Amino acid sequence: MKKIRIPENILEKIAEKEMIEKNVLSGKISEGRVVVPLNRKRQGLEKPCAIGEGLSVKVNANIGGSPDISDPAAELEKLRTSVKYGTDTVMDLTIGKYWKRILSAVVRESPVPVGTVPVYGAVCLGGSVADLKSDDFIEVISTQAEMGVDFMTVHAGVTRSVSKIYDKSKRVGGMVSRGGKIIYRWMKENNMENPLYERFDEILDIASQYNITISLGDGLRPGCLADASDDAQYGELRVLGELSRRCRQAGVQVMIEGPGHVPLNLIEENVRMEKELCGGAPFYVLGPLTTDIGAGYDHITGAIGGAFAAWKGADFLCYLTPAEHLHLPDNEDVAMGVIASKIAAHSGDVAKKIPGALERNEKMSKARRDLDWELMQRNAMAPAAVERERKRYPERKDRACTMCGEYCALLD
Amino acid sequence: MKKIRIPENILEKIAEKEMIEKNVLSGKISEGRVVVPLNRKRQGLEKPCAIGEGLSVKVNANIGGSPDISDPAAELEKLRTSVKYGTDTVMDLTIGKYWKRILSAVVRESPVPVGTVPVYGAVCLGGSVADLKSDDFIEVISTQAEMGVDFMTVHAGVTRSVSKIYDKSKRVGGMVSRGGKIIYRWMKENNMENPLYERFDEILDIASQYNITISLGDGLRPGCLADASDDAQYGELRVLGELSRRCRQAGVQVMIEGPGHVPLNLIEENVRMEKELCGGAPFYVLGPLTTDIGAGYDHITGAIGGAFAAWKGADFLCYLTPAEHLHLPDNEDVAMGVIASKIAAHSGDVAKKIPGALERNEKMSKARRDLDWELMQRNAMAPAAVERERKRYPERKDRACTMCGEYCALLD
Repeated sequence: MKKIRIPENILEKIAEKEMIEKNVLSGKISEGRVVVPLNRKRQGLEKPCAIGEGLSVKVNANIGGSPDISDPAAELEKLRTSVKYGTDTVMDLTIGKYWKRILSAVVRESPVPVGTVPVYGAVCLGGSVADLKSDDFIEVISTQAEMGVDFMTVHAGVTRSVSKIYDKSKRVGGMVSRGGKIIYRWMKENNMENPLYERFDEILDIASQYNITISLGDGLRPGCLADASDDAQYGELRVLGELSRRCRQAGVQVMIEGPGHVPLNLIEENVRMEKELCGGAPFYVLGPLTTDIGAGYDHITGAIGGAFAAWKGADFLCYLTPAEHLHLPDNEDVAMGVIASKIAAHSGDVAKKIPGALERNEKMSKARRDLDWELMQRNAMAPAAVERERKRYPERKDRACTMCGEYCALLD
Repeated sequence: MKKIRIPENILEKIAEKEMIEKNVLSGKISEGRVVVPLNRKRQGLEKPCAIGEGLSVKVNANIGGSPDISDPAAELEKLRTSVKYGTDTVMDLTIGKYWKRILSAVVRESPVPVGTVPVYGAVCLGGSVADLKSDDFIEVISTQAEMGVDFMTVHAGVTRSVSKIYDKSKRVGGMVSRGGKIIYRWMKENNMENPLYERFDEILDIASQYNITISLGDGLRPGCLADASDDAQYGELRVLGELSRRCRQAGVQVMIEGPGHVPLNLIEENVRMEKELCGGAPFYVLGPLTTDIGAGYDHITGAIGGAFAAWKGADFLCYLTPAEHLHLPDNEDVAMGVIASKIAAHSGDVAKKIPGALERNEKMSKARRDLDWELMQRNAMAPAAVERERKRYPERKDRACTMCGEYCALLD
């Protein structure tokens, strides 16, 4: 088993921030229960972070252009917005024009770890998905590794045998993962095995060389409540379990991506299955969304499931924005998505009694009891929002707000 | 034990909507596990609803002016907005100018049950809280009953003995219930027992006469995570348990109000305690908020706790708006609050497999799989939002959205 090496100064910085002992942190990294996404080539990572067991739950913001909307300046604006509101990482998911220009700029400017989905880079090479060569998928991983990308989603779990389970499943929502579906289509049209699975050792070599954290993608995550926890989903999760063991053997950091749409009563099972099948690897969930009907407000449905998942052991929440299921998020959607996910992550931290979490709430509550608005603003999850609202509705002379006025329960 | 009588046509309407047998519904009403807020004097209640065990979880929207901001037209606008977005009930919490005018108009216009907090009406009589007479509190209940109010929050649990527990408790957040604090101040300044407790039989007589549902207020609900589940909160809940038995004896419908700020890991305990101590009476929670630091986004912190509480047995969610802790909500805040709470309630319904809940999600998911935007819009929790976003970002010719474009996983 090869050893994972993280620079000492980074470990110290993280241990201090998480309020845990440095050797406890190192131990968990060695066991694969914690990852620190950090490409050896990466410059300017001012805010490194660790993701996993016993640590505060982290949040990722997806940015990047789409085939229809691609504007490098707009994506950099989203990067700044997501960092301003406290995202722990960003993923540049650009497909389409300017993808390399956007990714280079994001890696250069981002103070937080940057992730990608290399399959998206592959389809940007041009031509149809079916015409891509097996080498193209590996080549893009190499290129993005050299560009300094810290973590990459690898959809290696959509194998031929897993696809057969999916084909037989009578899913209501079908396959909703963009990366998973690209690989699935490629396999069908070329009648070949998933190149990311077949050539996983080559991917491990690259990941090991650059210290890239592999995020094993869930191409078969449920896209609606009715498909949650089905055979296709858990069949893929078993493959991800095997691949996670190979990552650990190769000294490559690994985390596992998870759903998706899951009713509240199945979220705990999802977390337990992931931890059991993948040797305690960090669990990186998208939501989960606890209902399918929240379009326009899926940052809220995602925050509900994310909070509960975080409490039960999910380590990393991919944000959802109000634009989910509707369109590419704009800058305002990005802000809302980060804030909602941060609230969810923090609700999990509080329930798990992560060091420092309750203390922050107590500071806020004392400020509230004392009607000290400056201090409330400073301790809020999103001080900018509190500032904005205070300007719209200034507090009264007695420092009560316009809700209860002179009958404020906190005036003594 | 006096019998509760609900008109047959109302029972039929509700049973059909909830997809349960009418006699099951009647049985639960008799046992006090379900309430149907409906004043005998009430006219125009187009959308009656039942709240309690085995039924879909309901949502309440608080409207009403404050001592600083009181505009009858604006409050009626909030009523219409909250109904448009699907609130099941409204409470008019006006304190200050025009309170009677606002309440009359709300009762006249509202198609959903209307609730009040009569203590607020009492302080509107003028003068200082301490100068109110014990009779004033009872008088207001009588007046509002005659006006057609369907349910009333009665803060009868803040008794002298419970106040002593509170005085000794070293709460971080103090007492945050406006109604509870008014009663507490009155008791201290007059050195008398809580008139709502002492004269509870008179209140029961009025409630019985008009068939008003009593909502036993939680003056000592925790206002921050640190105070959740403390002796003061549960001490009051025990008194509410006694009072709920007296309601049932008197043939008066009763529900119990609950917190407030509660970390995820204590929500289930809160629901269990309420059901145990109060004979299975419907539980009406405010949030719960799963963190104290969400100011500006407390509709989200409330939706997180509300969804989990709903799953675990809470029956009725009082909405929180983005304005919570900051100012009186405006019309836009009301819309956001209702939508967030509806998503939370529905997430609970789905997890509990309430009749019809999963089916609605399945319809939405099939529409999504088929990229049928008309049908998605129709099945969404908030069709207006979906319509608005579709106008901003029309779908492509192939009906994919601008998120993935031609790489949409749902294009086959």
